[in-house]
Amino acid sequence: MSNKVALVTNVTELAGLACARALLRDGFTVVCHDAKFGAADARSAFQRENSGLNASAEVEPENLVEDTLKIRGHIDVLFSNDVFAAGTGPIEDISVQQFRDTIEGLMVIPFRLCRAVVPQMKARRAGHIILFSSAAPLMPFPYFSSYCAARSGATNLAVSLSKELGPHNVQINAVLSQFMHSEKYFPRSLFKDGSPAAEFLKVHCPLQRLGEQEEMAELVAFLASGKCNFVNGQLIPFTGGWPSAASFPAKID
Amino acid sequence: MSNKVALVTNVTELAGLACARALLRDGFTVVCHDAKFGAADARSAFQRENSGLNASAEVEPENLVEDTLKIRGHIDVLFSNDVFAAGTGPIEDISVQQFRDTIEGLMVIPFRLCRAVVPQMKARRAGHIILFSSAAPLMPFPYFSSYCAARSGATNLAVSLSKELGPHNVQINAVLSQFMHSEKYFPRSLFKDGSPAAEFLKVHCPLQRLGEQEEMAELVAFLASGKCNFVNGQLIPFTGGWPSAASFPAKID
Amino acid sequence: MSNKVALVTNVTELAGLACARALLRDGFTVVCHDAKFGAADARSAFQRENSGLNASAEVEPENLVEDTLKIRGHIDVLFSNDVFAAGTGPIEDISVQQFRDTIEGLMVIPFRLCRAVVPQMKARRAGHIILFSSAAPLMPFPYFSSYCAARSGATNLAVSLSKELGPHNVQINAVLSQFMHSEKYFPRSLFKDGSPAAEFLKVHCPLQRLGEQEEMAELVAFLASGKCNFVNGQLIPFTGGWPSAASFPAKID
Amino acid sequence: MSNKVALVTNVTELAGLACARALLRDGFTVVCHDAKFGAADARSAFQRENSGLNASAEVEPENLVEDTLKIRGHIDVLFSNDVFAAGTGPIEDISVQQFRDTIEGLMVIPFRLCRAVVPQMKARRAGHIILFSSAAPLMPFPYFSSYCAARSGATNLAVSLSKELGPHNVQINAVLSQFMHSEKYFPRSLFKDGSPAAEFLKVHCPLQRLGEQEEMAELVAFLASGKCNFVNGQLIPFTGGWPSAASFPAKID
Repeated sequence: MSNKVALVTNVTELAGLACARALLRDGFTVVCHDAKFGAADARSAFQRENSGLNASAEVEPENLVEDTLKIRGHIDVLFSNDVFAAGTGPIEDISVQQFRDTIEGLMVIPFRLCRAVVPQMKARRAGHIILFSSAAPLMPFPYFSSYCAARSGATNLAVSLSKELGPHNVQINAVLSQFMHSEKYFPRSLFKDGSPAAEFLKVHCPLQRLGEQEEMAELVAFLASGKCNFVNGQLIPFTGGWPSAASFPAKID
Repeated sequence: MSNKVALVTNVTELAGLACARALLRDGFTVVCHDAKFGAADARSAFQRENSGLNASAEVEPENLVEDTLKIRGHIDVLFSNDVFAAGTGPIEDISVQQFRDTIEGLMVIPFRLCRAVVPQMKARRAGHIILFSSAAPLMPFPYFSSYCAARSGATNLAVSLSKELGPHNVQINAVLSQFMHSEKYFPRSLFKDGSPAAEFLKVHCPLQRLGEQEEMAELVAFLASGKCNFVNGQLIPFTGGWPSAASFPAKID
Repeated sequence: MSNKVALVTNVTELAGLACARALLRDGFTVVCHDAKFGAADARSAFQRENSGLNASAEVEPENLVEDTLKIRGHIDVLFSNDVFAAGTGPIEDISVQQFRDTIEGLMVIPFRLCRAVVPQMKARRAGHIILFSSAAPLMPFPYFSSYCAARSGATNLAVSLSKELGPHNVQINAVLSQFMHSEKYFPRSLFKDGSPAAEFLKVHCPLQRLGEQEEMAELVAFLASGKCNFVNGQLIPFTGGWPSAASFPAKID
Repeated sequence: MSNKVALVTNVTELAGLACARALLRDGFTVVCHDAKFGAADARSAFQRENSGLNASAEVEPENLVEDTLKIRGHIDVLFSNDVFAAGTGPIEDISVQQFRDTIEGLMVIPFRLCRAVVPQMKARRAGHIILFSSAAPLMPFPYFSSYCAARSGATNLAVSLSKELGPHNVQINAVLSQFMHSEKYFPRSLFKDGSPAAEFLKVHCPLQRLGEQEEMAELVAFLASGKCNFVNGQLIPFTGGWPSAASFPAKID
């Protein structure tokens, strides 16, 4: 068993599993969290299907970190894979409670995770934190105000924490996703040739395709590798070149 | 009484009063909110000392807007003057409850205000929203992670809401303050010649002085004036040129 | 004659004339430059049609500034209204000479103007420089690489010069235009109801209209006014909320 | 000999050699350019000392690309390692010719290189361009206006070109360096314990150390690897967390 320990949250969501596998490949002992893992059979099913990965029974951030530290001794890498299905619509149709729930899922959870892993990283003068966030706030689509505000707040955690963690040799960055394939949010069926979604990508994403979870996993693995720690406190968009637009239909200045 | 109505929140905090006066000067009927105005004597004292300004008894965002609409008929301008004394320190010393309170004060309050004023602005195809926020997230000082995250989230509201409000001819922008004079946060006594704070300003703020509340008031009045509505969905730093740094003490590339 | 002197370049281009008039209204003696003003009859025609504005015969930046200083004694405000009809197309179709010419028009000219006006501003500890630039680099349209690179370089002048000029109480900012009406670049005829250009604006500009030169003039006049000098070293987009995009045609994360 | 060809310019400058070696390690045939390589003995000395790397005799961008294509058939990766010792000082002390020279070195050269490599990349629907640029424009030090303007212009090339190259499956990104070790610009001798430069780093760079060329080489190799092409059109700061500042010497809001 490797001496390098990585913690991946929400492992069954988005690129969580791909990232866990890439970290395992790169020599990490990988502890996986998921909302479903409170149930013993979900944990054992996950471990059966994903040889080498470890499912934790702890669901709450503080318990998860405490339990992992007890069993593994330390945490080298935290990949906070935050996700929340925020309500969308005109601001007057989003309830205040929906906004608070979105903030809880996208800002408070990574704050709690960082808060829990930081002390032992500072003590060991080593550690990498990678926050999964969204590039949506860079050019918000209409009707995503609560989602974009919460993601923007979370994203800034990477920047602001980098200032206090850097002197302890702990690195923190955020990856900002847009148009990454997932069956829940950007399923392939939606992007069949000629579909409105495919046409949208052609206009707004220079690469004219979805991002792959394996590409995200390589990015996360790179940031976790320790090969280039001088990239610190940064937001790295994973967007294929979005935001972009078709040429203006006439000569412009 | 003018037919143009402006709502200013937290009027006794920061540049609230200066902004309210500038809007009054420019012909607005100005309705002022403050946490203290739940008490009748605080309201009457405020009105006695600030002839022409109106103190509302309503403290909660929704009630404040509803009451103002009942009395004034409509709201043309919302200046959401958000302020909250966030705890500072290493992330492990900030409690989760402190983070939630900071978010409540800096993100949820402006969300609730926007949510409440927007429907009548859309219906009338006219309105200006100006969010007061901080420039701190642009280059966070160490130990301000909860504050910067919350301010960053709030700031993005101006950007994301601009996308859905623009087609209804409602403008929204945010002003991002750093080093604005106030006796509570940046008192003049702190910046006496030769003091550490004054030396800090000399190095980090090109104008080498505090910003004045009257300057902020002119900026807010300009954005509220309707003279330049094409500035929309923007974040306007009010920082004297901060962030900045002394020259590197040797030739660099 | 006012003691406050403003210099406006390329006065017959874009919002140059509207800005000159707004500065005149606000009490400035306004000296106007234009490429055409080398010819005496162009100057006299301009002055006849624009009572109160002064046309300079000097075309080169250094001569223009020197002559203005000789006649007016000092310059309080420089509005560097830079414009250049850059070639567009795939990078392999833009010649190196075209790129150099674009840079000369959009970067070297404002550099020369700043260089020439700065010494007397520093000596007097007063002055405002406003660079007209484009918001295009914020989300470049395809095939505008030489234009966007040059504009981006020019825009950064406002930021970088603010760091050295601030301690001398000289302010510099840039206004970044996109979709401002002008008969040369964004003529009204192009945006008739139902036209491709009008449809483009509906999708990509939240306000769904062109910006007006009078709005730009108010912004420039505000920055020149001295009422809010603490806005310094900033880039202020004048875009109606662009960049923006239609909602993604399905639920997204 | 590998079928994957990488072109590295200014290989003896900054991290050029480290990047060339990392690309060689990753299986590329690496063609190296340097201003010195017009001389045959400089080329042979370089190849003797750097087994496996190839020195080109061509100094001009167009010739370099043409010659490489003639010999190698195609170019998969261009690492445009741009560097120029720009003059620094107050703007009035920088001559217009110095500014033009700086632009030539930092903007026109990468433009010419991109222009030359792009057609065959588009034709093959494959290729990666990585521009080396500086993070200095993100928070310019005083007296670097010509350098920062030119770097900012060059940096935007990565963004603007990504919009037109993406549909051809060609990726372009820029790495933005600050405080990377090099004996020419940031020599170790300058950063001895207690030196002004070392103290400066402690305050302004969260990691409190110089970046290593090997770290930069890993970043460039990652972007060239094709493992994560969805990171496209991005600017990736390599700064250790700079810009940053010591805490304000009192409680602030």
